[in-house]
Amino acid sequence: MSKYQHIKEEAYEANMQLPALGLVLFTFGNVSAVDRSQGVFAIKPSGVPYAKLNPDAMVIVDFEGNIVEGNLRPSSDTETHAVLYKNWTNIGGIVHTHSTYATAWAQSLLPVPIFGTTHADHLTVDVPCAPPMSDEMIKGDYEYETGFQIINHFNSLSLDYNELEMVLVGNHAPFTWGKNAEKAVYNSAVLETIAQMAYLTRQINPNAPLLKPALIQKHYERKHGPNSYYGQ
Amino acid sequence: MSKYQHIKEEAYEANMQLPALGLVLFTFGNVSAVDRSQGVFAIKPSGVPYAKLNPDAMVIVDFEGNIVEGNLRPSSDTETHAVLYKNWTNIGGIVHTHSTYATAWAQSLLPVPIFGTTHADHLTVDVPCAPPMSDEMIKGDYEYETGFQIINHFNSLSLDYNELEMVLVGNHAPFTWGKNAEKAVYNSAVLETIAQMAYLTRQINPNAPLLKPALIQKHYERKHGPNSYYGQ
Amino acid sequence: MSKYQHIKEEAYEANMQLPALGLVLFTFGNVSAVDRSQGVFAIKPSGVPYAKLNPDAMVIVDFEGNIVEGNLRPSSDTETHAVLYKNWTNIGGIVHTHSTYATAWAQSLLPVPIFGTTHADHLTVDVPCAPPMSDEMIKGDYEYETGFQIINHFNSLSLDYNELEMVLVGNHAPFTWGKNAEKAVYNSAVLETIAQMAYLTRQINPNAPLLKPALIQKHYERKHGPNSYYGQ
Amino acid sequence: MSKYQHIKEEAYEANMQLPALGLVLFTFGNVSAVDRSQGVFAIKPSGVPYAKLNPDAMVIVDFEGNIVEGNLRPSSDTETHAVLYKNWTNIGGIVHTHSTYATAWAQSLLPVPIFGTTHADHLTVDVPCAPPMSDEMIKGDYEYETGFQIINHFNSLSLDYNELEMVLVGNHAPFTWGKNAEKAVYNSAVLETIAQMAYLTRQINPNAPLLKPALIQKHYERKHGPNSYYGQ
Repeated sequence: MSKYQHIKEEAYEANMQLPALGLVLFTFGNVSAVDRSQGVFAIKPSGVPYAKLNPDAMVIVDFEGNIVEGNLRPSSDTETHAVLYKNWTNIGGIVHTHSTYATAWAQSLLPVPIFGTTHADHLTVDVPCAPPMSDEMIKGDYEYETGFQIINHFNSLSLDYNELEMVLVGNHAPFTWGKNAEKAVYNSAVLETIAQMAYLTRQINPNAPLLKPALIQKHYERKHGPNSYYGQ
Repeated sequence: MSKYQHIKEEAYEANMQLPALGLVLFTFGNVSAVDRSQGVFAIKPSGVPYAKLNPDAMVIVDFEGNIVEGNLRPSSDTETHAVLYKNWTNIGGIVHTHSTYATAWAQSLLPVPIFGTTHADHLTVDVPCAPPMSDEMIKGDYEYETGFQIINHFNSLSLDYNELEMVLVGNHAPFTWGKNAEKAVYNSAVLETIAQMAYLTRQINPNAPLLKPALIQKHYERKHGPNSYYGQ
Repeated sequence: MSKYQHIKEEAYEANMQLPALGLVLFTFGNVSAVDRSQGVFAIKPSGVPYAKLNPDAMVIVDFEGNIVEGNLRPSSDTETHAVLYKNWTNIGGIVHTHSTYATAWAQSLLPVPIFGTTHADHLTVDVPCAPPMSDEMIKGDYEYETGFQIINHFNSLSLDYNELEMVLVGNHAPFTWGKNAEKAVYNSAVLETIAQMAYLTRQINPNAPLLKPALIQKHYERKHGPNSYYGQ
Repeated sequence: MSKYQHIKEEAYEANMQLPALGLVLFTFGNVSAVDRSQGVFAIKPSGVPYAKLNPDAMVIVDFEGNIVEGNLRPSSDTETHAVLYKNWTNIGGIVHTHSTYATAWAQSLLPVPIFGTTHADHLTVDVPCAPPMSDEMIKGDYEYETGFQIINHFNSLSLDYNELEMVLVGNHAPFTWGKNAEKAVYNSAVLETIAQMAYLTRQINPNAPLLKPALIQKHYERKHGPNSYYGQ
């Protein structure tokens, strides 16, 4: 058995959650799971339908984007995952989808406004939208640069990837991450939901105010931090 | 067998209806069922996926919010339920969800207008939207204060919780209740539907008028009151 | 076996299509099927969940709204069905739902505009929206008057119920009919679809023009009339 | 066994994907698959419910629209398929649906704007919308003229059907094609998704810019052309 079997299983299970949660059409998405002690991650093979996946189809890749094990070509977005794993040293799983509402906000080049407690249960700020890359970055090593575009946008806004586990890439679609692949998938579903709710809120009341700081803090701390009291 | 088994079963069955009716993502919702003779209610444990629930996982809590029986931590919204049961002495079940359209109206800080008979079949007024709480209330005993925010809003509008079994909490999401947990879940599904219809109505015709009193009265009385003739 | 067994079966099967097609929440809809030789129709009992229906639960009613056979109370909308069967002597089945998009147009008090061939494949004009009734009619025999409100609106617009098998009742919801109950259900699903498409069309292009007469005529005649060539 | 069995199977399998992908209500769609060596294609019979289809029900038709084999009447859109196969000599399958969002754009008489990479992964331009035909063409051989209306619109915009495999027919609905029937169905689902995303994008940000050329080129070439690196 492969010494990467545990992350192949983790990545496989998490990938299969994408169609189950209605987050992907066909193969428009991918999940990876990392093993930091071995310096590699397991990621979905490119363009393989979810119905034909199995754990052994996952591709093992290092943080430079080199294939370490596997017979299939990894996701075309593999280098973006590699850059994020290499630079954000605490994350354990990454998800990329083209989920409908999150992608619509990304295409609108607008962050998802924090309108309510569903949002604040998971993050304390608008979901940021990284601007489209320069033509030079696009024509260069595109997927690699996408990773840095995300990191640079977080740095420019002084955001912490440990607290804020999702981003929109302008004109493209969302990326999410978390302590493991399952949590990253969870975040993708949360993002899609708050993106839909924010869309509807703006349609109902174009002047809807953002959530006030006291409510943001209260709801975020209910679920996170030293005094959280949500869950078991 | 626990002397609370009947409300554990009732709460469990009602909780399982939330995902079946499409009213929750992950664990974003909870249902409770009361036994007034024993002065306790059964409520969903916090953060436990619906697929892993069973009747014995329900937590028994009294009207002060104290745990009476159960090994798990109860829903983080438990105190809101406790306040409502204590003050509104006729209700038998309570539901909290973050269902999409109802939450969008709550985030818009607007009541759901009474535009049609689907709405009037269940209530005779707009679905009220309680304003966000003061920072002091939020920073204090938040879930406890949420219960009073609801009750105070009903009192300020002279609304009767026996006739109007649903409310939006501004910037947050809906609460519904009823004679038992099943009816409270029914009301959550009705609210989500009339919230969606009201959203669409406004989009189609921004000047759509509210339902006139004669139709409100007729439809409400078809289903409720001494001369109702709906159902068996 | 009842001499009405055939229409009980027909009404039962057609009623069960409403949840299968996503046209009803809970019990918000009903279907009836007529036997004109016996002067009666079979209709859903009031407020009984679809999952608990069976053919024998259908109630047999005459064209004056009197119960002829059955142990349950018939749909609260029974008199509307009776009026339509009595006055429109060619129809074999009737459906009432509160389907989401059709109801939103009804609540907007606007007809559904004929924007495309999906619409013209089934009818050559906007789906009419009967205005809300006078308070006197509402406070009188409401369901009976609803039937006449529909008939009068058709007469005022010189519409033929043989060609146009659907209507919105303003502030309320749609009614559809057809040569039998199955066709009436088909028309309810068609109405919901063209109502959604018309909603989206207006949102995308508020100045979208109505379909021109040549296309209306062509598509309607493809499916209907002496030279139709759709189907087997 | 028929010498057309392979395209009957191909057309059947592809037709069954339409309801599975949520692209059709009732019989509002059809797929065909061609055998160019025999100069015929297999197409869905007209008006037959998907649940009652089987491979042998497919009708074999030549490029003039003549029935070659089969007991049922072919789709009413058969002549449009025939014209496209005859004139666009590289395509292997064709799909026509009335899918909701694509049809709403067609009814709006507007092309679907290229707002993001989901779109550019599949085509480099807006999805074109052919204008409604003249009354003479409509009253003449309508389905035959529909094929030419599509071809003429492509020619007027200097579009290549080998690269752009989808079109809206104004006031009507979409047609898609591809190297085989399965790919044509894939394109119908892609079109519906990008039509929904473009709708939402416009609603969120009426001034959302079109995707810039560098991103269009990059994403299209990731999946297509000599240096593509998507898939296996």
